[in-house]
Amino acid sequence: MKLSQVGEFGLIDLLKRGLPTAKSVKKGIGDDCAVVEWDKTRYMLLTTDMLLEGIHFTPKDAPVAIGHKAMAVNLSDIAAMGGSAKYALVSLGLPPASPVERVKQIYQGMQRLGRRFGVSIIGGDTNRSNKLTINVALIGQVDKKHLVRRRGARPGDAIFVTGPLGDSYRSRHHLNFMPRLKEAGLLVRKYNPQAMIDISDGLIADLYHILEASGVGARLHEEVIPRRGECPLERALYDGEDFELLFAVGKSDARRLLRQRDINVFCIGEITKRKNKLEMINKRGKTVHLLNTGYRHF
Amino acid sequence: MKLSQVGEFGLIDLLKRGLPTAKSVKKGIGDDCAVVEWDKTRYMLLTTDMLLEGIHFTPKDAPVAIGHKAMAVNLSDIAAMGGSAKYALVSLGLPPASPVERVKQIYQGMQRLGRRFGVSIIGGDTNRSNKLTINVALIGQVDKKHLVRRRGARPGDAIFVTGPLGDSYRSRHHLNFMPRLKEAGLLVRKYNPQAMIDISDGLIADLYHILEASGVGARLHEEVIPRRGECPLERALYDGEDFELLFAVGKSDARRLLRQRDINVFCIGEITKRKNKLEMINKRGKTVHLLNTGYRHF
Repeated sequence: MKLSQVGEFGLIDLLKRGLPTAKSVKKGIGDDCAVVEWDKTRYMLLTTDMLLEGIHFTPKDAPVAIGHKAMAVNLSDIAAMGGSAKYALVSLGLPPASPVERVKQIYQGMQRLGRRFGVSIIGGDTNRSNKLTINVALIGQVDKKHLVRRRGARPGDAIFVTGPLGDSYRSRHHLNFMPRLKEAGLLVRKYNPQAMIDISDGLIADLYHILEASGVGARLHEEVIPRRGECPLERALYDGEDFELLFAVGKSDARRLLRQRDINVFCIGEITKRKNKLEMINKRGKTVHLLNTGYRHF
Repeated sequence: MKLSQVGEFGLIDLLKRGLPTAKSVKKGIGDDCAVVEWDKTRYMLLTTDMLLEGIHFTPKDAPVAIGHKAMAVNLSDIAAMGGSAKYALVSLGLPPASPVERVKQIYQGMQRLGRRFGVSIIGGDTNRSNKLTINVALIGQVDKKHLVRRRGARPGDAIFVTGPLGDSYRSRHHLNFMPRLKEAGLLVRKYNPQAMIDISDGLIADLYHILEASGVGARLHEEVIPRRGECPLERALYDGEDFELLFAVGKSDARRLLRQRDINVFCIGEITKRKNKLEMINKRGKTVHLLNTGYRHF
């Protein structure tokens, strides 16, 4: 069997089987970050993302933007757990003919965004490679009482996203987006999010991750799904790399959130009891079922 | 200017300039691991290494061995600081046509070695890639009183290595070596190593790292430099990827170490006062100077 036949999630399922984990590991593979004990009040959050030329960026993209993205996708994972970021390790695979200036700019892109969110780049590795390859591993922290996972959504919770969706590639949003750390910080301090994820595989695919982890269903309302630049609905639902937060909040917290407006959010639906069922009320008031088809990595 | 002109260490120097680091960072870029505060008695150690097909392994190498190496090179960095390993994050870039079995075996190689040293693989990332690419980020810990860095060697200290050197590629040692974590643990508990590094760039290049960081020189004795399979001296001095520990120990600790023999070690010389000067007494009793030329990554 080839990788292209089992797909990314099939592969992850295979690999995590039989992975022994120490007692200090609260959550291993299967959420936006791994979660381990740090001290009495804090968990450590750990995440990593590899960016490859020709897949996550093109040789023509500005090096500062490539560096920005490499840091941002990891920061987005930390945000999705309600945490803050601290340390980064950066591995670079570089073609020997790369101009040094280009490498410096990639680094600048990472550093500038990192600094904004209090990240220190404390280590790394550099190698020869045919194609530019960047791996960032990010270590963060979260107050134990503020940890938010994919599981925890309850029937009746309202579903929110932090920004318009779709067309991330065409609009170049995927290269210059701002990870939602500030929003996540406010959310966990004020609004008790019950489940959260960052949208990297697409709204529907990532909402299914929450539904599966929480053992619930959901109902979306087409009219209120925010789209980037009025893009077709299809793209808002299925495009990847939006990097907005998708989260579930109890009803009274949801009302406060909508009233106070200290975070830019869009309420797009509610959690239901119907396990793993995702439906949408379309513009004509009809209920349609949305299947779990997201971005395929292989 | 191209990367191939500035080389890896020139690049690292460029990149680490102006890197702001938080107060909790005891050591950033420039040692085998980064060192940050964990709690009252422990530091956290962080390291990362990227392995690329065609550079660190070939498509013909056994997948279990490739996985083993990806974990081992990182464990070796933790050993070099006197620590133990805890958590690993694994990023894979995989050709879509890869047989799933091959990927499982790579993972098995990592897991088996990780388990032996108490490492939990707690997260990762998988991507499509033309060539197999593996990045491991490893988080470990060290008792504050046991931390060993590159700096700290003092004139008069004896210089040791933990095994024979050279011919690592030809002998396939680079694919199946055992990282010296056990030896490092014994060393820091019993023999007060003053400075330590793992030999990845070659004996001479890595000894220079200790000399530069410590502001000292060294004298080696050709006769006692252990060579893998009687390989030529040149290779024992300059080949990379031996992954033995190279360390400096005070005289009386050195005598105890040689007497007790609870660690397999070879005494190869002594630290001198002559800053950044590295000489060797050859078999005819002549003193020769050894220049700082190690493995070039670019």
